[in-house]
Amino acid sequence: MTLLVVGTVALDSVETPFGKADSILGGSATYFSVSASYFSSVRLSAVVGEDFPDEHREIFENHKINTKGLVTLPGKTFHWKGSYGFDLNTANTLETHLNVLAGFNPKLTDEEASTPYVFLANIDPDIQLAVIDQLKAPKFVALDSMNFWIENKRDALEQAIRRVNMVVLNESEAREFTGYPSLVKAAREISRLGPEAVIIKQGEYGSISIFKDEIFSAPAYPMENVYDPTGAGDTFAGGVMGYIARREDVTSNILRQSMIVGSAMASYNVESFSLERLRKLDFNDVVRRYNEIKRITVFEDLQ
Amino acid sequence: MTLLVVGTVALDSVETPFGKADSILGGSATYFSVSASYFSSVRLSAVVGEDFPDEHREIFENHKINTKGLVTLPGKTFHWKGSYGFDLNTANTLETHLNVLAGFNPKLTDEEASTPYVFLANIDPDIQLAVIDQLKAPKFVALDSMNFWIENKRDALEQAIRRVNMVVLNESEAREFTGYPSLVKAAREISRLGPEAVIIKQGEYGSISIFKDEIFSAPAYPMENVYDPTGAGDTFAGGVMGYIARREDVTSNILRQSMIVGSAMASYNVESFSLERLRKLDFNDVVRRYNEIKRITVFEDLQ
Repeated sequence: MTLLVVGTVALDSVETPFGKADSILGGSATYFSVSASYFSSVRLSAVVGEDFPDEHREIFENHKINTKGLVTLPGKTFHWKGSYGFDLNTANTLETHLNVLAGFNPKLTDEEASTPYVFLANIDPDIQLAVIDQLKAPKFVALDSMNFWIENKRDALEQAIRRVNMVVLNESEAREFTGYPSLVKAAREISRLGPEAVIIKQGEYGSISIFKDEIFSAPAYPMENVYDPTGAGDTFAGGVMGYIARREDVTSNILRQSMIVGSAMASYNVESFSLERLRKLDFNDVVRRYNEIKRITVFEDLQ
Repeated sequence: MTLLVVGTVALDSVETPFGKADSILGGSATYFSVSASYFSSVRLSAVVGEDFPDEHREIFENHKINTKGLVTLPGKTFHWKGSYGFDLNTANTLETHLNVLAGFNPKLTDEEASTPYVFLANIDPDIQLAVIDQLKAPKFVALDSMNFWIENKRDALEQAIRRVNMVVLNESEAREFTGYPSLVKAAREISRLGPEAVIIKQGEYGSISIFKDEIFSAPAYPMENVYDPTGAGDTFAGGVMGYIARREDVTSNILRQSMIVGSAMASYNVESFSLERLRKLDFNDVVRRYNEIKRITVFEDLQ
């Protein structure tokens, strides 16, 4: 099945305790689409500037990602500059230059609008709503967001949440949006707005979900070496939605599996800067790490 | 099998967003011993002052905890005063009065010294070493510690770690002790000093362990209502060691089960102030929550 992602494609500057890199490929829709491409065919809707290099386009092409919706506008590509401290858990945003992103207003083609599985990556909730309005045959639509929109466009975000099947937020966003310190309560509260599934990402600790009132706790793969956590959440979401599109259904079992797939994909992504590791996987790598996550989480009944 | 715990018994003053309580029963050995008492017989070695109320002693008696080693010294009981903010994850220590704890120097009776399973709760590592010197037939000895000892008595702590079978630390302590941001690397580094098992507690996220180079990731039970997280780590450790003593062996499977037991016990403990919930459980409660944790973590193979 086909999956559409609407989000950002960026040129990032990233500094971690292990090094720094400038003008590397980044953006929510980038990490998402490459991650999802291991499981389903992906259509990308995003915008770049005239400075966007061909070598980055090739990465999408190599993963057979449909880039007809990757619009080039006059000006520079969206640029994010950030750094990470010792524990690599928190990104410090140093600079954000929207550039061409400020004029992004996706007009879906008929083909795009008919995609059954849709992910609205972290982007202005008014754009998310405009995309939802254009969808012709949505089977399962999910969205991500961030603190900035919770604080500045809460009403639009809430409207968007009411119209999707799944919400994917990180824990600080879920707490801020609902006011509940308990992630279970926060997830239930978001679910009450409409979505049958809510996933709360917990960074290096994994994620938890509520699906039709049923809780699932997915571990992260315990990492020995994290080089660059940028894009881990989008890579996770790409694994989740890619797997859901592959299975063409959302049941409790499939959602659980999809979150483990997401953990596996995210664990590979953080092993190198940008998409250096993520773009060089094969399906066996995914299966291997999935099975490793299973091995490190199973336990017998109480005796 | 019998389990000996050496640690603190305290009178705590605790403030959370849900209320405050003064002079309530606390201390590492208190939470540990009551938690462990659901799985094995427990001997308690600790010190209290003349102000320690009989009603608190009754809690130990009700759980058949052997308190021959609970020494009363002239003066006041160790007092800790702390508060928790919105997310209940971090305790802010407002006051610490060692009182009689300053003169604590446990002399084990023959019976105590012959206990096969031993837990050295968070206490001065010189005392932990002095207890280890007195042990006559240790089968499995574990210790906990805290940042204060890592910073002020690192050598003694390292000596103690070299002489135990298992170390239980929380993640910030493990990172501070080893200098590694990766918990897997930190656990391996601690294991290299001697202990075959290392458990790193991650608060509301659960815990991970390394046992003979094998990683296990144990989830916490996702809580809807946390009233007071005080003692959660000691309650967890009490579940772990109590279950190990019950099974009279430490294998990969038993350690995994013990950590889930620890998660179950800790989840009950945080449901009320002090030991109000923890001390009123029965074994069926433990089994029920253990099975719930299993239900929220199982997932099928990748398809």
